[in-house]
Formats: sequence, C-alpha cells, structure tokens
Amino acid sequence: MSETAPRRRGRPPRTESADTRDRILAAAREEFSARGYEKTSVRGIAKAAGVDSALVHHYFGTKEQVFEAAIEIAFAPALHAPAAVADGPVAEVGERLTRFVFGVWDNPTTRAPLLAIFRSAVTNETAAAVFRRLVATQLLRRVAAQLNLPDAELRAELAAAQIVGTALMRYVIKLEPLASADLEQIIARVAPVVQIHLTQP
Amino acid sequence: MSETAPRRRGRPPRTESADTRDRILAAAREEFSARGYEKTSVRGIAKAAGVDSALVHHYFGTKEQVFEAAIEIAFAPALHAPAAVADGPVAEVGERLTRFVFGVWDNPTTRAPLLAIFRSAVTNETAAAVFRRLVATQLLRRVAAQLNLPDAELRAELAAAQIVGTALMRYVIKLEPLASADLEQIIARVAPVVQIHLTQP
Repeated sequence: MSETAPRRRGRPPRTESADTRDRILAAAREEFSARGYEKTSVRGIAKAAGVDSALVHHYFGTKEQVFEAAIEIAFAPALHAPAAVADGPVAEVGERLTRFVFGVWDNPTTRAPLLAIFRSAVTNETAAAVFRRLVATQLLRRVAAQLNLPDAELRAELAAAQIVGTALMRYVIKLEPLASADLEQIIARVAPVVQIHLTQP
Repeated sequence: MSETAPRRRGRPPRTESADTRDRILAAAREEFSARGYEKTSVRGIAKAAGVDSALVHHYFGTKEQVFEAAIEIAFAPALHAPAAVADGPVAEVGERLTRFVFGVWDNPTTRAPLLAIFRSAVTNETAAAVFRRLVATQLLRRVAAQLNLPDAELRAELAAAQIVGTALMRYVIKLEPLASADLEQIIARVAPVVQIHLTQP
C-alpha cells in the first residue's frame, strides 16, 4: 500500500493530514516498541502506516526525529507528574509521585510505549540522548523546580532511580516476589523512600 | 580461522581446552555486549574466538547456555555481595551493600559485562529469564537469607531496585547531574535508603 496524496470523501485536507500524522506516529510507536530503535527503519514505519516513506520524512524528518515525536506522545501521561508533585502537602509529595508513576506503569496501555522507549534508550546512544533530553528537561527539572532546594535535580533523579528501578524489576525483569506483589504494598514501601530523596535535609 | 583439535607445543590437553573455553567465553561476552542477545549468534562467537561453531556447542550447548555461562563469569564480582552484607554490623548493611555494588559498576572493567547482561535482559525474554534466575537465586536470595526477616526477599529486591536504578541513570542514560556527581556523594544518599529497605520494620 502507498498513499502519497491522501484524500477521503467529506473530510477537509487539514483533518486528513492530522489523521495521517497520527497513523504514522502510532505505527512508529509500535515498530520502535517491537524492534527497538536500531532495527526500526523509516521504511518499516511507512509500510506499517500504509503510506510512502517520503511522507514520513515530510512530516517528521529523520528516524531520530520520528522517534522523538513518537516518544513525546508516549510520554504525555508521565508529563503530568510535576503537577502531581506540586498539588498537595509537601509531606506527601513522595506518595503522590510514586502513586502517579506506578499508575502509568501498571496500566498496560500506558506501559507499552514507556517500555519501548526504555528498551531503545538502554541499547542505543541516539535513543538514550532523546530519552535524556525528554526526561531531564520535561520531567525531572519540573519536579525539581517544585522542591525549591539547592540540590533538587539530584534529588529528583535519585527518586526517579528508585521508581524506575522498581518498575524495571517488576515489569521488565519480572523478579519474584516483586512482580506479583500487590501494587499498594509496593507503593507503601517505595513512597517513604521517594519522600526522603525529595525532601529530607 | 578454525580450530577443531587444538594443540600447542608443551601444554597438556587439559590446559589447552580450558584456554579454548576461556577464549570462547571472552568472545561470547564481547559479542553479547556489542550486539545484544538477539543479534548475537553462536557462529559469530565461534568466529570471534577463532574456533569452529561445533566446538562452541560442544563446550556450552545452545546460545542460551553460552549466554548463561558468559554472564555467570561476568557476575562473579557481584556474587561477593552477600558476603559484603553478612560481614559487619547490621546497622551498616545498607552502606556495605551500596558501596560494594557501586564499586562493581564504577569500574569500567567490571561494568562492561554487567551492562551487556543488562541490555540483553531488558530487550529479550530468554535473556531476562537467565538474568532473573541468576540475580534471584545467586544474589538476592543470599542477601535476603542474611536478613532473617519474613519479607526479606521483597526487601532485597527493593534495595536492588534503588541501586540498579541509580546505576542505570548514571552509567547508561547518563542523566546529569547524577552522571557527573561524586561517587561518595551518591553512596551517602543511596545507602540510608538501602538500609531502610533492608532492615527498617
């Protein structure tokens, strides 16, 4: 299948091109998720989306730029974390952040794209750079900004390390008993530690 | 190059075959490290070691078994962790374990094979199963056995999650300021949290 000048009846071109763009992004997320960054090609993404490779380049540019666009959307739920941190008493910030992030990881629909990014980031330097840029600037620095402490960025990173490390062991490596443990039990253990990282003098 | 019946002057056959075995294992570690589990083949390992594929199968069996043998050796330094936990006052177990594991990660020579295992484990289910078996039975259960607490295994896993998550952010994703922070500063932040996971009621 190829589609260089998409047209369906009764739809204005703008909506049409937004549809195509979304379809390419969805295909990109699935390809990166299934194959990882290195083995995914713009051509493969185009094929999965039922469009011409030129159209993928037209909308997004290089493979790295397609990846960045795909993971920005995958990251959208996680980007509410800074608000989750800001919104409530400081003494409970650890629990709010932990509960929020595990909410994203525990839902298979929001977990899948995160896993895809994660797998690409640990195996490919270009993907790691995109991940770093996005996590650092869009997520951790905003969380850190809420804390108002001189070493807030390091604090936010160590808190993230506990949460991401736990998610990795539970959802990717599937270590037992962690993988089968009740989510509330895990939050009860992880939240106090996240609180310490974020706020303890 | 192929080598089906290795013989060098002045060496007994046993040493010779131990040499060949070690050479295959070293080649396997490098191949898995550079390419990850999926893209590595027994044929590629044999080629890198300068031996025949049949010899690799003869010594180790399947690709999964070569992987397990290669990572068992890579894991050897980490397997001293249970002793590091046992050997000293309980109130300092968090610092001993943290210091020990970061000692392994901070040394490029011992970090490289760990990274290779880790990359393979997050991207391939077979590799994850080998990693799980080794980490769970050889490492975390032994650490847990020292703790003498009913939920010791979950405690050991959450402590490992903090340490591995931090190592991941520092050495793989290279998030700043964590990546450039002084190791002693990181140990000072991580050790109390590891202590909480391992021993706090």
